[in-house]
Amino acid sequence: MERADYLEAIKSRMPEKRYIHTMGVMETAIHLAEKYGENVKSAETAAILHDIAKYADENWMIQIVKDNDLDQRLITWGPELLHGPVGAWIAENEFNIHDEDLLNSIRFHTTGRAGMSKLEKILYIADMIEPNRNFDGVEKLRSKADEDLNKAMRACIRHSIKYLVKTKQKIYPVSIECYNDLIELDEY
Amino acid sequence: MERADYLEAIKSRMPEKRYIHTMGVMETAIHLAEKYGENVKSAETAAILHDIAKYADENWMIQIVKDNDLDQRLITWGPELLHGPVGAWIAENEFNIHDEDLLNSIRFHTTGRAGMSKLEKILYIADMIEPNRNFDGVEKLRSKADEDLNKAMRACIRHSIKYLVKTKQKIYPVSIECYNDLIELDEY
Repeated sequence: MERADYLEAIKSRMPEKRYIHTMGVMETAIHLAEKYGENVKSAETAAILHDIAKYADENWMIQIVKDNDLDQRLITWGPELLHGPVGAWIAENEFNIHDEDLLNSIRFHTTGRAGMSKLEKILYIADMIEPNRNFDGVEKLRSKADEDLNKAMRACIRHSIKYLVKTKQKIYPVSIECYNDLIELDEY
Repeated sequence: MERADYLEAIKSRMPEKRYIHTMGVMETAIHLAEKYGENVKSAETAAILHDIAKYADENWMIQIVKDNDLDQRLITWGPELLHGPVGAWIAENEFNIHDEDLLNSIRFHTTGRAGMSKLEKILYIADMIEPNRNFDGVEKLRSKADEDLNKAMRACIRHSIKYLVKTKQKIYPVSIECYNDLIELDEY
């Protein structure tokens, strides 16, 4: 499928604001893929599809998790974390995508995880810094993304965890594994 | 054993600054135990012994963890997290303390954990807010401790996690379980 087909497929599944966000993620992911030597078409497709399940019915998503051997902890964790793994499931089952790296980038775009691939980092970062994002500190994250992909990923996951603590939200264990993994590596 | 005996026993195992800190923790833990209806003698003993392993040899502590079925993840996590569990081991094996709640309060005084008892919360909080502590935000934590033990515990673990992220230190999974547990409870 080409870009236009994917865009057409997601447009009816989300409000306009989310579609505009998705276009921003696509633009940023392509830029980062070019900059850091990742497959541009994969980055583009992952970005377009990353929020495809964002407005899916919660009970339906829970059923998908139960029926398809996805991370079962998601069932009790609230809706926000369902759309990544279920989005990957849709990409595979509805759009016939079998590139595991591309699917993982959609699957983990909200939580991150330990041992992320280059494409996974690109999508996570692009989702956070795309041009329509506007929060304290986003400019610093954008600068980091133009300097070093790993440093940018570390800055993004640190920002996410600080935000969750500040707003008194639970932190998914997989996100802490991601954080610890990035803190630990000496080269950063 | 009485207070003077415990104090005598710890004095030679730590520098003066740590001993002064310990006295502060004792004073605060006693105050909180009186305020919230906990056994005062248990709070006093736990406070005196909480840092007894703080200056123990790292290799010796790792051996204790290996030989005694303690949390084996501690072995690779660096020295800071060893002294709580090993301190509880010393309290049990050298001081013949078998009150599991008292031992747990020493064991988890650095990390916290999900489902903390009243005594565990008292020691965790006292360690953070004792009169010699002096960091941005400590006054707010002290006020909370005089209002509500659970709110104070939640504020303390949030402060700890924010501090770890700010200073780019790894976060022990048990601390996130503690944080998530306290965030989740509606009554806070």
